[in-house]
Amino acid sequence: MKDIQSQLDHRRVNIKKVGVKTISYPITVLDKENNRQHTVASVNMYVNLPHKFKGTHMSRFIEILNRFHGEIDLGSFQKILEEMKNRLNAEASHIEICFPYFLRRNHQEETLNSCRYECQMHGSLDNGDELELRFNVPIFRPLKKKNFHGMPRSRGHWGNSTITVRFNRFMWIEDLILLVERAIYDTHRQEKSLDEELNVYSVESLTEKIAENLSTQKEIKWYSVIVENLGEGYSTFASLASDDILNN
Amino acid sequence: MKDIQSQLDHRRVNIKKVGVKTISYPITVLDKENNRQHTVASVNMYVNLPHKFKGTHMSRFIEILNRFHGEIDLGSFQKILEEMKNRLNAEASHIEICFPYFLRRNHQEETLNSCRYECQMHGSLDNGDELELRFNVPIFRPLKKKNFHGMPRSRGHWGNSTITVRFNRFMWIEDLILLVERAIYDTHRQEKSLDEELNVYSVESLTEKIAENLSTQKEIKWYSVIVENLGEGYSTFASLASDDILNN
Amino acid sequence: MKDIQSQLDHRRVNIKKVGVKTISYPITVLDKENNRQHTVASVNMYVNLPHKFKGTHMSRFIEILNRFHGEIDLGSFQKILEEMKNRLNAEASHIEICFPYFLRRNHQEETLNSCRYECQMHGSLDNGDELELRFNVPIFRPLKKKNFHGMPRSRGHWGNSTITVRFNRFMWIEDLILLVERAIYDTHRQEKSLDEELNVYSVESLTEKIAENLSTQKEIKWYSVIVENLGEGYSTFASLASDDILNN
Amino acid sequence: MKDIQSQLDHRRVNIKKVGVKTISYPITVLDKENNRQHTVASVNMYVNLPHKFKGTHMSRFIEILNRFHGEIDLGSFQKILEEMKNRLNAEASHIEICFPYFLRRNHQEETLNSCRYECQMHGSLDNGDELELRFNVPIFRPLKKKNFHGMPRSRGHWGNSTITVRFNRFMWIEDLILLVERAIYDTHRQEKSLDEELNVYSVESLTEKIAENLSTQKEIKWYSVIVENLGEGYSTFASLASDDILNN
Repeated sequence: MKDIQSQLDHRRVNIKKVGVKTISYPITVLDKENNRQHTVASVNMYVNLPHKFKGTHMSRFIEILNRFHGEIDLGSFQKILEEMKNRLNAEASHIEICFPYFLRRNHQEETLNSCRYECQMHGSLDNGDELELRFNVPIFRPLKKKNFHGMPRSRGHWGNSTITVRFNRFMWIEDLILLVERAIYDTHRQEKSLDEELNVYSVESLTEKIAENLSTQKEIKWYSVIVENLGEGYSTFASLASDDILNN
Repeated sequence: MKDIQSQLDHRRVNIKKVGVKTISYPITVLDKENNRQHTVASVNMYVNLPHKFKGTHMSRFIEILNRFHGEIDLGSFQKILEEMKNRLNAEASHIEICFPYFLRRNHQEETLNSCRYECQMHGSLDNGDELELRFNVPIFRPLKKKNFHGMPRSRGHWGNSTITVRFNRFMWIEDLILLVERAIYDTHRQEKSLDEELNVYSVESLTEKIAENLSTQKEIKWYSVIVENLGEGYSTFASLASDDILNN
Repeated sequence: MKDIQSQLDHRRVNIKKVGVKTISYPITVLDKENNRQHTVASVNMYVNLPHKFKGTHMSRFIEILNRFHGEIDLGSFQKILEEMKNRLNAEASHIEICFPYFLRRNHQEETLNSCRYECQMHGSLDNGDELELRFNVPIFRPLKKKNFHGMPRSRGHWGNSTITVRFNRFMWIEDLILLVERAIYDTHRQEKSLDEELNVYSVESLTEKIAENLSTQKEIKWYSVIVENLGEGYSTFASLASDDILNN
Repeated sequence: MKDIQSQLDHRRVNIKKVGVKTISYPITVLDKENNRQHTVASVNMYVNLPHKFKGTHMSRFIEILNRFHGEIDLGSFQKILEEMKNRLNAEASHIEICFPYFLRRNHQEETLNSCRYECQMHGSLDNGDELELRFNVPIFRPLKKKNFHGMPRSRGHWGNSTITVRFNRFMWIEDLILLVERAIYDTHRQEKSLDEELNVYSVESLTEKIAENLSTQKEIKWYSVIVENLGEGYSTFASLASDDILNN
């Protein structure tokens, strides 16, 4: 093992992580309208180690997770990160949770009263602490009128947007989703006909519209936006990211 | 359209279905220990139509689903099926829901206190009514001892078992899962060494062991079992199904 | 083990299968334009056993597959099925292969010169032999005009069609795909405006259009069609199947 | 739009990308033993734009890809990158391709003569050019002996390793895979019994073993290694990355 170590040292192995991942867990998350909502998460927890692996006590990740009983909010996130860092003598600790978030809609008889959005939160405790939220807003073609049977028909799945944000202050997931959806569907509502839409509704213009809406929020410290249009045989996409240096 | 219809009639088009599918929905299901548990389902609802499509009111599926607010149990299943059949003038109605079910474990500090099992329920109202439950029990190598750091290590993912049952009487999902796990791990516990295991622990023997345990339950009217062993580059599998004719 | 067997016998366990699955394998398939095309398949091979499992020689599946070196056509399919049935003393033998099939397009500079279609072939040797082909044709919104930058933009992924056929005589996959695409896009071409489309372009009407086109082919003994429209939060679908009894 | 731009400018939006993604394409790649092998790729192509989006000619990506007819090697990679950068007036250009690579094995009758490895190549033309190869080597438990039916049985899927490398000089994918497999299975071969293995075969030790083998290759400029062990309900993992600063 000496030879190995010396070789590794020669190359200055500089990142070492250990952890547990893809733990499926029922959790509750904060919900603006109903206080808390129940969902199911996939959880990753890991730490950066200083020098070399020395038989990490993997079971400690599970012990820490068990102690919080699936109650995940900003407060528990912070505590989980601190416990990981302390109990595993780590340089930095990380937790990532992916979960579907369900947004209740105004009750219309004919439309689904709950819409699913994929979310991912990544918290880390390193130099300072950082929280990042990523969520996906699918883009469907708006339904202008009902067909002759009195029911709406979909014009198909136009594409997807993926938004990542870091915060200056707390924001509700609902408010973020609605901010993005206003950008997506306002663009549309200004159009006069479906044919005219084609010239305006592009991955580039939607990316900029969403970025514009995110830029107006003081709670947001940094963001990135990706918009994808599903095409035949491939997708096209555009993305942009803000810069947070000037933002402090 | 006449030509089409006559051609289709010539071939006696005999199955016509319409419906909605992959609706993601937060639901609660019955839980033996805690009464109800929260989870997230993917729901399909569809009907068999008698003659030809006549502008099915697709939105009625959503109206029916909304009315039940995600409370899914045997009682609501039956009512949803009846409403679909009546409101859509159908010959038969079907509902399928897939969801992860979490089984609470005895609290040991070091092991996850909740284990995930994929479940699928299929109810139909045709001639008579029928309920089928399918669930997946992953097979891991048992852990005989802890390693020198005091933590268990996995010997890897040996394979999966998929069990489908139809019922004479109600059974808890928990009881079914435990019945299957007893078959899987009892087989193992009789072994003397890991090397000896190789001759006994096979997809065929596990399939028969699980079938044996299911056969002892009077609540079960019919079952099928598939056991899969993950190998390098491919899996091997065995399956068997009971016959329910003699069972009445 | 006696007790088990008697219990199983009591329930007349009537289906027993063993085999290998999800073997990933580079294969060549018949291609109307270029004679053969290279693709990558996932292969399942299994047999029905008469009485009970007796230590099936799983490695024989692999030996048989290796011998054919990934050359898969109707001739080798038949030979593989016969070898499986004979060498494993089986009542019936089955082979399933899933693979992407690439259809070359007329070369236009700006569009992809090759389009991917998911295919699945299922051959079995039971009482008689049977070959079933399933393939997926995605449905995109037709592009009527280019946008101001001289490039086409997608109106999104409207949905998918899944077609299954059994044959009286050989047909090229290309011809089947084109037959289905003519049904999908002819429906559209008759429309006068995008708005009018909404009343005609439905899962029911497309299902019937595709069935109509398949019905005109004498090579086809039986077929089923599923058409799915991707909507916000769920899909709607319609399906129908021909009846092959009158077809003989 | 002015307000938007000024807001965006205020935050110094500093990354803008456009491109096409998930193009499925049959390709040929270099193969040490057979010169070239046929496989199927998923391709992403995108560019970094300097200031703002101005109606990117998305179709140019497709034109460029079509011109190379799926012949992907280091030479064509470089040419594709240059064409993208030039024709789209970009600051940087990127191409990513994911494909299964099949490694031929010595022909033993009973084992699959071709093994699948997931690979991903990422080339970019920015300041200088950079090529990164990522590949996955699944870890199965070694088979020490055959069972009583004369066939090997799998002890299950222990886990996976994911290796990423940047190069000083060209290396064959085959040689990289074999280098990693020697690290994985040598660790094992030294063991005396399956029980003893448990104390040695860990995600940390395997990560270090693989890193050791990669460190001996002068062709490799930088690498990272992740090893994952599949457990019941979650996986454990370890990772490390070399540092390339001293390596020049």
